[in-house]
Amino acid sequence: LLSKLPDVGTSIFAVMTQLAQECGAINLAQGFPDYDPPLALQQALARHATTSGHHQYAPMPGLLRLREAIAGKTARVYGVPAPDAATEITVTCGATEALYAVLAAVVHPGDEVLVLEPAYDLYGPAIRLQGGVPVYVPLSAADFRPDWDRVRASLTSSTRLVMLNSPHNPSGAVLTAEDLDQLAALLAGTDTLVLSDEVYEHMVFDGEPHRSVLRHPALRERAFVLSSFGKTYHATGWKMGYCVAPPALTAEVRRVHQFLTFAVSTPTQHALADMLETDSGHDEGLPAFYQHKRDLFRELLAGSRFELLPVPGGYFQLARYHQISADNDVTFARHLTREAGVAVVPVSAFYHHGHNTGLVRFCFAKQDSTLRAAAERLVGL
Amino acid sequence: LLSKLPDVGTSIFAVMTQLAQECGAINLAQGFPDYDPPLALQQALARHATTSGHHQYAPMPGLLRLREAIAGKTARVYGVPAPDAATEITVTCGATEALYAVLAAVVHPGDEVLVLEPAYDLYGPAIRLQGGVPVYVPLSAADFRPDWDRVRASLTSSTRLVMLNSPHNPSGAVLTAEDLDQLAALLAGTDTLVLSDEVYEHMVFDGEPHRSVLRHPALRERAFVLSSFGKTYHATGWKMGYCVAPPALTAEVRRVHQFLTFAVSTPTQHALADMLETDSGHDEGLPAFYQHKRDLFRELLAGSRFELLPVPGGYFQLARYHQISADNDVTFARHLTREAGVAVVPVSAFYHHGHNTGLVRFCFAKQDSTLRAAAERLVGL
Ligand SMILES: CSCCC(=O)C(=O)O
Ligand SMILES: CSCCC(=O)C(=O)O
Repeated sequence: LLSKLPDVGTSIFAVMTQLAQECGAINLAQGFPDYDPPLALQQALARHATTSGHHQYAPMPGLLRLREAIAGKTARVYGVPAPDAATEITVTCGATEALYAVLAAVVHPGDEVLVLEPAYDLYGPAIRLQGGVPVYVPLSAADFRPDWDRVRASLTSSTRLVMLNSPHNPSGAVLTAEDLDQLAALLAGTDTLVLSDEVYEHMVFDGEPHRSVLRHPALRERAFVLSSFGKTYHATGWKMGYCVAPPALTAEVRRVHQFLTFAVSTPTQHALADMLETDSGHDEGLPAFYQHKRDLFRELLAGSRFELLPVPGGYFQLARYHQISADNDVTFARHLTREAGVAVVPVSAFYHHGHNTGLVRFCFAKQDSTLRAAAERLVGL
Repeated sequence: LLSKLPDVGTSIFAVMTQLAQECGAINLAQGFPDYDPPLALQQALARHATTSGHHQYAPMPGLLRLREAIAGKTARVYGVPAPDAATEITVTCGATEALYAVLAAVVHPGDEVLVLEPAYDLYGPAIRLQGGVPVYVPLSAADFRPDWDRVRASLTSSTRLVMLNSPHNPSGAVLTAEDLDQLAALLAGTDTLVLSDEVYEHMVFDGEPHRSVLRHPALRERAFVLSSFGKTYHATGWKMGYCVAPPALTAEVRRVHQFLTFAVSTPTQHALADMLETDSGHDEGLPAFYQHKRDLFRELLAGSRFELLPVPGGYFQLARYHQISADNDVTFARHLTREAGVAVVPVSAFYHHGHNTGLVRFCFAKQDSTLRAAAERLVGL
C-alpha cells in the first residue's frame, strides 16, 4: 500500500494524551479544558436531543438560525457589518474540517502555501494531501512574530494561500494592526488568498484587542476566517466550528464541504444557536477568565527551573528548560510525563523538520486546582 | 479564483429539499426519515449532553467503548469474528467523511477509481479532488446489476480502487454472493482496493440477507466497509458513521481522518455506545419495517401512471414516468414538485453525463401517513 503520508504518524496530541493516561500524569499536553461548557449550553443540547424533528440532516451550510446568530455575534464582537448568513458563513465539523475544506477547495497541485513556523501540526500534511507545497517561513525565534521581509521574499507567483494563526498555537503571539497592514500591502494586486485561523479569538490578554482579519477590509476580501465553538464554549468534543469568507470563496468551500461531511450535527447546531441568541457576555468574559489562569500558572512556576516565555494570547504557556539536562524536547516531554507526572507537548512537533527546540508547551485551560497540582510537581524538578 | 470543481453545483438533494420547502411539497427527494430516532437513543444523548467530562475531544479513532460496541454488533449481525476495535474501526462524521477520508488516503493523482453508474453524487467529485480519475462502468439498464465482464474490461494497472454500494442508491439493487466472488476473482493478485458503501445494510427485503463484504474474506482483506448510524437509527442529522478495514488500511484512513475532522462528537458517541450496548433488536426489525413501507408505497401507486421498478433493498423507489410527457427527468422532477406537490430526485443526477433517464427517485423512509398523502397527489396525475 503506497501511503500518501508515509512520514505522518499519530498526532502528537493523541500520543501525549495516551501517555498521560498510561502514567496517570496530569495532562497539560493536548489543548482542551478540564471544565465543562456553560450549563445553559449543556441543557440546550439535552433539550434538542429530545425534540422531535431535530434529528435529520441540517442544511448543508448549517442551520440558517445558527448562521444568523453567528453573523450577529461577528458584528457585535468586531464592530463590522454582519457577514451575510446566506452566502458568507459555513458551519463545519470543528475548525479542523473548515481548514481542510479550504485547502481542498483552493490548493491546486503544485500551488505553494505559505506557513509561518512553528505551526499547528495539521497544516503541512493537509496541504500536501492536496498536492500543494508548504513553504515554511520561520517566525522570529525571540518572540514568534512574523518577519514580513522574509514573507515577501518567500511569495511567488505560485503562492495560492498564506496561512495566519492569531493568537498563535503554540506560542500565544498575536498579530498587530501593523502586521495585517504589512501583509495586505504584500498581497495587493496578487491573487493570493489568506486562511486566518482565529480559534483563540477570545483569548487575548493585557487589554489588547484581537485583530481579526474580519476587521481589515483589504484582507477580508481575500480571506477565509475560521472560528471554533469548541474553544469559545469549552466544548472541544462537540466538534463545531465555522468559516466566514466572501461569497465567491464561501461557494468554493461549500463545494468541498458538501462532499466532505455534507452537514454537521443538527441538535448541536440548535443548541449553539440557542446559546448565541441568549448569550449574556460569555465571550466577553473569556479574556479575563484565561488571563487569570495564565497569571496563576506563571506565578506558581516562578520558583521553578523553567524559563517562561511571554503569553500575549491563547491558552498555552511555552517554557524553556535549559537548566534541566535533556537530550531533546521529545525525550524531555516524555521524561516529564513519566517522572514528574505532568504531560506536555514538545515544541519540535510544530516544526516540519522536527529539530529540538529546547521548549515544551503547557496548556493552562485547566481548573485552578489542576494548575496548582501540576505546578507542585514541576517546581520540585 | 480558479475553481477545482467548476462543474459542480449545489447537491441535488439540497436543491430539491429547498424547492420542496418553497413549494410546500411533500419531500420524497432527499433521503431521510420523517420520524425520529428511538426514544432511548434521544434520551441517551440528552443524558450525555449534561454529563460532566463528556464534552472534550474523543480519542481520534472514536471512543473505545463505541468501537468495541461496533465490533460486537458486526460479529453478531454478520456472524464473523469481531473486527479489532483498536486497529480496524474508525468513527467518522457520517459515512460521508469516511468515504472522503478513504479516497484522500489512497487515491494518488492519476489513479483510476472504478465507479458503477448510476452512483451517489459525491463519488465523482470526491475522486477528482484527489487528482484521481473516475472510470464509470454502467450498471445494467434492466436491473442495475453489475456486468462483471465490463468491469474486467475497465480494470487497468492504474485502478487503485473499486467502489461498491449495496444496497444501491438510487436503484435498491443488492449484490449477491456470486457478485462478490466475481469481483474477488477479478482482483486476485492485484493491488486494487475496494470501498464498500453499505449504509443501507439493514434494508434488504424479501428474506434475502445483506451480503456484506465483511463476510467475504478475500474481499475483506482489501476493503474499506462503510456504515451509517444515521441510516440505522433514523438520525441522519447526527452525522455519525464508521469505517471497518484491516489494520494497514485503517492506519491510512486515520492518518487523513486526524487532519480532516480529528474526531467526532463525544456526547453523541457515548449515546450511540449506550444504544448499541443495550440494543434489543432495533436493527433486526429494520428489514420488516422498511419492507412494509416499500410495499405500502407500491400498493398506493398501483393505479398511477408511474411504472415502478423492483426494490430489493434500500429506502428508495425508482419510477418510470413514460406515460406522462416531459422534456427530461430534471424538468419532470421540478414539475412534480411544483405542480403535484411531491418532491423527487431526477435519476440523471446519479450519472456523470447527466443525460435524461426518464426516471425519478422517491424516498419511502416516511411515515405511512406521509406516503398516503404523497400517493394521493401522485395517482391523480
Ligand atoms: C485536535 S487535538 C489538538 C488540540 C490542540 O489544538 C492543541 O493541543 O494544539
Ligand atoms: C446528504 S443528503 C443526501 C441523502 C441521501 O443519501 C440521498 O438522498 O441519496
